[in-house]
Amino acid sequence: MPDHSLTLEDIRRAHDAIRDATVRTPTVRATRLSSLLGIDLYLKLETLQHTNAFKARGALNKLLTLSEADRAKGVIACSAGNHAQGLAYHATRLGIRSVIVMPEGTPFNKIKRTEDFGARVITHGDGFDDSVAFTLDMAAREGLTFVHPFDDPAVVAGQGTVALEMLEQAPDLDTIVVPVGGGGLIAGMATAIKALKPEVEVVGAQAHLFDAVKAQFNGTETHFDGATLAEGIAVRVPSEANLALIRAHVDRIGSVTEPEIEAAIFDLLSHEKIVAEGAPGAGLALIKAEAERLKGRSVGLVVCGGNIDSRLLSTLILRGLVRDGRITRLAFEIDDRPGQLAEISRLIGEAGANVIEVIHQRMMQTVSLKRAELEIVIEARDRFHVEEILSHLRGGGFSVKVGAVV
Amino acid sequence: MPDHSLTLEDIRRAHDAIRDATVRTPTVRATRLSSLLGIDLYLKLETLQHTNAFKARGALNKLLTLSEADRAKGVIACSAGNHAQGLAYHATRLGIRSVIVMPEGTPFNKIKRTEDFGARVITHGDGFDDSVAFTLDMAAREGLTFVHPFDDPAVVAGQGTVALEMLEQAPDLDTIVVPVGGGGLIAGMATAIKALKPEVEVVGAQAHLFDAVKAQFNGTETHFDGATLAEGIAVRVPSEANLALIRAHVDRIGSVTEPEIEAAIFDLLSHEKIVAEGAPGAGLALIKAEAERLKGRSVGLVVCGGNIDSRLLSTLILRGLVRDGRITRLAFEIDDRPGQLAEISRLIGEAGANVIEVIHQRMMQTVSLKRAELEIVIEARDRFHVEEILSHLRGGGFSVKVGAVV
Repeated sequence: MPDHSLTLEDIRRAHDAIRDATVRTPTVRATRLSSLLGIDLYLKLETLQHTNAFKARGALNKLLTLSEADRAKGVIACSAGNHAQGLAYHATRLGIRSVIVMPEGTPFNKIKRTEDFGARVITHGDGFDDSVAFTLDMAAREGLTFVHPFDDPAVVAGQGTVALEMLEQAPDLDTIVVPVGGGGLIAGMATAIKALKPEVEVVGAQAHLFDAVKAQFNGTETHFDGATLAEGIAVRVPSEANLALIRAHVDRIGSVTEPEIEAAIFDLLSHEKIVAEGAPGAGLALIKAEAERLKGRSVGLVVCGGNIDSRLLSTLILRGLVRDGRITRLAFEIDDRPGQLAEISRLIGEAGANVIEVIHQRMMQTVSLKRAELEIVIEARDRFHVEEILSHLRGGGFSVKVGAVV
Repeated sequence: MPDHSLTLEDIRRAHDAIRDATVRTPTVRATRLSSLLGIDLYLKLETLQHTNAFKARGALNKLLTLSEADRAKGVIACSAGNHAQGLAYHATRLGIRSVIVMPEGTPFNKIKRTEDFGARVITHGDGFDDSVAFTLDMAAREGLTFVHPFDDPAVVAGQGTVALEMLEQAPDLDTIVVPVGGGGLIAGMATAIKALKPEVEVVGAQAHLFDAVKAQFNGTETHFDGATLAEGIAVRVPSEANLALIRAHVDRIGSVTEPEIEAAIFDLLSHEKIVAEGAPGAGLALIKAEAERLKGRSVGLVVCGGNIDSRLLSTLILRGLVRDGRITRLAFEIDDRPGQLAEISRLIGEAGANVIEVIHQRMMQTVSLKRAELEIVIEARDRFHVEEILSHLRGGGFSVKVGAVV
């Protein structure tokens, strides 16, 4: 049965309960992004929360509602992400046993980080449906309390505490943008915001590939399309209780594409020096997409988590540099005779760029045997500079085009 | 003549002057690093300051001391780094013309970022000595006020304001660690700290390759050895005035190696989700090196800047993963016949690792013509897992060793 009954008082009680063991994360003005977007942009840095995500708030609030008997038996959850880490961290801190179930094939570092916080991690099942069935079964068998990542009023009240702090730290916000997956964070936050400052617009941001809440909110068709960079909000079936709160308190829900999310993560890193995961990337991407509408307003974004895989982050940075034209692969078709590489290098240097990598393949080429393909990766100022370099090389008699890189 | 006269009052006045246009950056507890190091570690995030570094404080304080006539003429500085950006940002904001001189060959993105803040950037000279001579000449010729990055009492007073905030935000610190280049930040901070809380230990951190302040402090020999990752503190000649303040107020100065700095930058990113440049990396590296001595204490670190080149950061992340054993290159010498790659891939999968990249070269090999070299880059849990995988492959009859990667 949907639970429409969450109130500001529940969220205030949650805040009192968790405050001492929760980081009051800072809300900072994003100077560069504000000036680029023409928006007064504020970021609530839940990346600096325990376990680097807001999920620790809801998990802790839930743990504090357990009876002594339930605490003694322990808790169980099914999650490979921030909920798992947040629950494990606070359970261990409170001396409560925690079991986390993850689907088979979950990346090592997610298992390791959760184990590092003191949980017993069990991998089971082919996907989340399988794992959830196993989790509920084990919970019943061993008397463990199952902690749902978002479909639980105590969890939602805990997440809502983000709003209480944000409204105090940035009292002049016109709009608050919240990433949306299962809807726990936005349901809690919107409840608090509309009770305290009904004039503040609350906007949800989803990945276009997983837009269940947006679809139900707008009455449109839902997308479930494979893998999204915003793993933390890749939820197929949001909670009915949260949807009821969202329908009551949220103004709009938008969605963004994967390239938009990727670019936004890079923006947060390069402009604001913040390591953000996909979900806040979706939030910033929506703000960028709606920049015209939001122009001149004071906008707050919950940077809800920073748990992005390091290898993915490394690749994402390189791709960002490629998009900006700072790293470009040039593909040459040259006569296979001495001196060509030296001449090309000289021209690139003259044009003011640096050579980063040279790839000179003789096998697997598409050109005739007496010609050769040469690829050179260069570092330039930006895309306009790349155009200058291409002109200079063509002026020197070389056949060159921009190739793919990364 | 050395200026010993900087006082707490100067720093308080600077704070009053710059406060409204300066971010009161948060001081956050580093949860993971604290538990890994057995230290209660707090980070003052000047990465969230305007232009992502503390340098904006000193630059602003200096600008606010200028007469109307000097403001009308403009300012000039010689810097390719944070001082340039901080000065440009606040000068432009105050309607003051700024000229920044950088050595020829300064990377594009440093020029671009400084121009983005409204400065006119001139590249001149082979190195900093050349550029400084040109800068002073141009200052005299055009009546511009030269703003030194650290050898100026108004600048040092501005940097010292970091300490006032840090002592309020984390009142129980036993030790404060400050990265040291020209000595402006630590001279200002130590002056404030020892006036307010003489019992707090103040420790300076230098790169071993540029340890002029440490050498003068300890009476040892100075190193100047090429390029350091900690560009922001790569200063050959520190200021005499700062040295006098440092001798009076600082307890210890240590230095760290380049691999230590690199590892510490990766730690801040992967454990605390903070983008830090080399200088704060040196600070954390010193804390790690002295972890035994600092055990159980409450230690504050000034994360003084976040301006690290994105390409460098991307590579640094990959190298961090390689160090942790998460990415490993395996080099095989195999018979050059069909089915070998399939068999190796199968064994790697059985051992629970993922194949990321396969490099199968037939030219440029050191083995005989009937044998082939195959390199496979794998992702594993950690170094122990890599050992298991190697055993499994050798058990399957393959000759394999760990090769270099990145």
